[in-house]
Amino acid sequence: MFRVLKTEGRARRGEFTCAHGTVQTPVFMNVGTQGAIKGAVSALDLKEIGCQVELSNTYHLHLRPGDEVVRQLGGLHKFMGWDGPILTDSGGFQVFSLAGLRKIKEEGVTFASHIDGRRIFMGPEESMRIQSNLGSDIAMAFDECVENPATYEYAKASCERTLRWLERCVTEHGRLNALPDTVNPAQMLFGINQGATFADLRVWHMKEIAKLDCDGYAIGGLAVGEPTQVMYDIIDAVEPHMPADKPRYLMGVGTPSNIIEAVARGVDFFDCVMPARNARHAKLFTWSGALNIKNEKYKLDDRPIDPGCGCPVCRHFSRAYLRHLFVAGEMLAMRLAVLHNLWFYNELAARIRQALDGGEFAAFRAEYAQKLTGQL
Amino acid sequence: MFRVLKTEGRARRGEFTCAHGTVQTPVFMNVGTQGAIKGAVSALDLKEIGCQVELSNTYHLHLRPGDEVVRQLGGLHKFMGWDGPILTDSGGFQVFSLAGLRKIKEEGVTFASHIDGRRIFMGPEESMRIQSNLGSDIAMAFDECVENPATYEYAKASCERTLRWLERCVTEHGRLNALPDTVNPAQMLFGINQGATFADLRVWHMKEIAKLDCDGYAIGGLAVGEPTQVMYDIIDAVEPHMPADKPRYLMGVGTPSNIIEAVARGVDFFDCVMPARNARHAKLFTWSGALNIKNEKYKLDDRPIDPGCGCPVCRHFSRAYLRHLFVAGEMLAMRLAVLHNLWFYNELAARIRQALDGGEFAAFRAEYAQKLTGQL
Repeated sequence: MFRVLKTEGRARRGEFTCAHGTVQTPVFMNVGTQGAIKGAVSALDLKEIGCQVELSNTYHLHLRPGDEVVRQLGGLHKFMGWDGPILTDSGGFQVFSLAGLRKIKEEGVTFASHIDGRRIFMGPEESMRIQSNLGSDIAMAFDECVENPATYEYAKASCERTLRWLERCVTEHGRLNALPDTVNPAQMLFGINQGATFADLRVWHMKEIAKLDCDGYAIGGLAVGEPTQVMYDIIDAVEPHMPADKPRYLMGVGTPSNIIEAVARGVDFFDCVMPARNARHAKLFTWSGALNIKNEKYKLDDRPIDPGCGCPVCRHFSRAYLRHLFVAGEMLAMRLAVLHNLWFYNELAARIRQALDGGEFAAFRAEYAQKLTGQL
Repeated sequence: MFRVLKTEGRARRGEFTCAHGTVQTPVFMNVGTQGAIKGAVSALDLKEIGCQVELSNTYHLHLRPGDEVVRQLGGLHKFMGWDGPILTDSGGFQVFSLAGLRKIKEEGVTFASHIDGRRIFMGPEESMRIQSNLGSDIAMAFDECVENPATYEYAKASCERTLRWLERCVTEHGRLNALPDTVNPAQMLFGINQGATFADLRVWHMKEIAKLDCDGYAIGGLAVGEPTQVMYDIIDAVEPHMPADKPRYLMGVGTPSNIIEAVARGVDFFDCVMPARNARHAKLFTWSGALNIKNEKYKLDDRPIDPGCGCPVCRHFSRAYLRHLFVAGEMLAMRLAVLHNLWFYNELAARIRQALDGGEFAAFRAEYAQKLTGQL
């Protein structure tokens, strides 16, 4: 269930309800690929840093520990100790970016596991069954994320196939939800718009998938190397054709600036590995721009990472201590940096919501869209 | 200030007060070598897992970030965000076990940093100055920890020199505490008994250092490869000559069984890297023995690591999840395993105290001394 509470221009302030709770949107989802967040962050920590939705990867959990194992243990919520909403991706992106020796046919994709080279087949039905076993609140449709750049011909054939795959996903998802022993009978399904950087393909595909009445719609296949303005242009082209009463999710995006700009273009859901990956490289977000905490100038700096931040790290530890942990190679450096950066992204979404609530999103966008991505 | 509250045989239930709080003994101190606990565990976590005393290493902090840096940032408590008692070792053990190209003279030791090979000199005065800069509650005397096995002649010459070094430590420590800008003017100093595995040297040395009226006394240079019974025999020989009104610390020991047996022989303080190191190798302690969580048999086991354990890990996560984290190579595996094992050691000390309070330590020892070190 999704309700738009308020709008400002195309930006939307909404509320999304699923089996494990109500999510305030716009929302940033926190990525826990294998049922754990990189940097020694657990589900208990997610509660502390303002996470509303956890995102796990179907491909990874299928390989390890196996979705049948997770199912036997009561589903992913119970397995990882997180009782809030969970979104699982379809496995498609990893199959096309991580696995080896791919062979795409109409029925699905055969690929080699990146762990042990084992040959695995995944198609729309397999992806739905895996996600059903995981019991996530939101399942994502199985799609092909084409490489950038792609030829028009390939992109057209691919997004036609992705449409046929979505039809099969809808059918199989409905069947699985109705089984008596399904883990989460209220699991929702989001369709994914594809079409590479070709606006006409994107619009055609969006119109077609909108007819299938999914619970939400995602824009996939962006932020894969194309210029940022191309990404914004695609959103501008597709957005008018996305159902206004369904949540909209821009997959794998992005910088703080990208998120603000996409909210301005009508997007509600986000996820990105950037806060965690930057944290592991000692790059920390602040409300005045990003900083590299390993820099010599922080050696004696007893201020928190961001004096304006209320995260557990900023409330207890100094820049000098964080720098020491990185220089000394302590695992704790990763944890504290990831906690701070994830808090920052969750807080960014919270401030966007606050601005929308107050009718001040335009001012917020003007103040922060560029500033947050700069280097201190 | 140390008070023995109760005894049972030679075992002592005590209370130790220093600048940052009162410690209930027997106590297990949690090792945070570089001002952080291995496995992404912070000072905030130490509060959650029942830690009373944090132990940091003078050698490591002298090299990184440098004790002058820590001093300028207000001392180690402020630097690492831990407001409870801290003990710092003297640097001696690391100089003799970790650093390269050692050259021992009467004045002290010249050695090469294990990080960058830089030549460094450390003698009693340098060790006291570093620990004064760190501002720990308990400073340890600078000693030589001889290799095992050692010849009688070498051990004798070494522990005579360690005695002369202790005299210099006492003098320098007193001078530093009296300086107007010292970080912790109430810092205490513990002397360290040496003498390898030669009971007569150990006893002679203990009698000599007892005359110097330190705030507490440690037995050093044990658990370095000698048979366990030899360690117990040395404690039996030395203990009658340790001042009864001062706390006693057995350095770097040991297994749960070692700790119970040493408490039975009159020891009050312990530290060991074993709980954290075992955790990193997936070996977890329980009240029925140790288990290796990577074992296939835990794949579908939804019980906590130890059903009788109240730690944050056992309250929230299953064996199956822990196993998955280890198999999948998630950093979170280390954190959860270290938290559990440190809790176990802190709880072991708490149960020993409880047994002593109730006059039931003999029964506790009979039940657990062997059981806890066994393999499930």
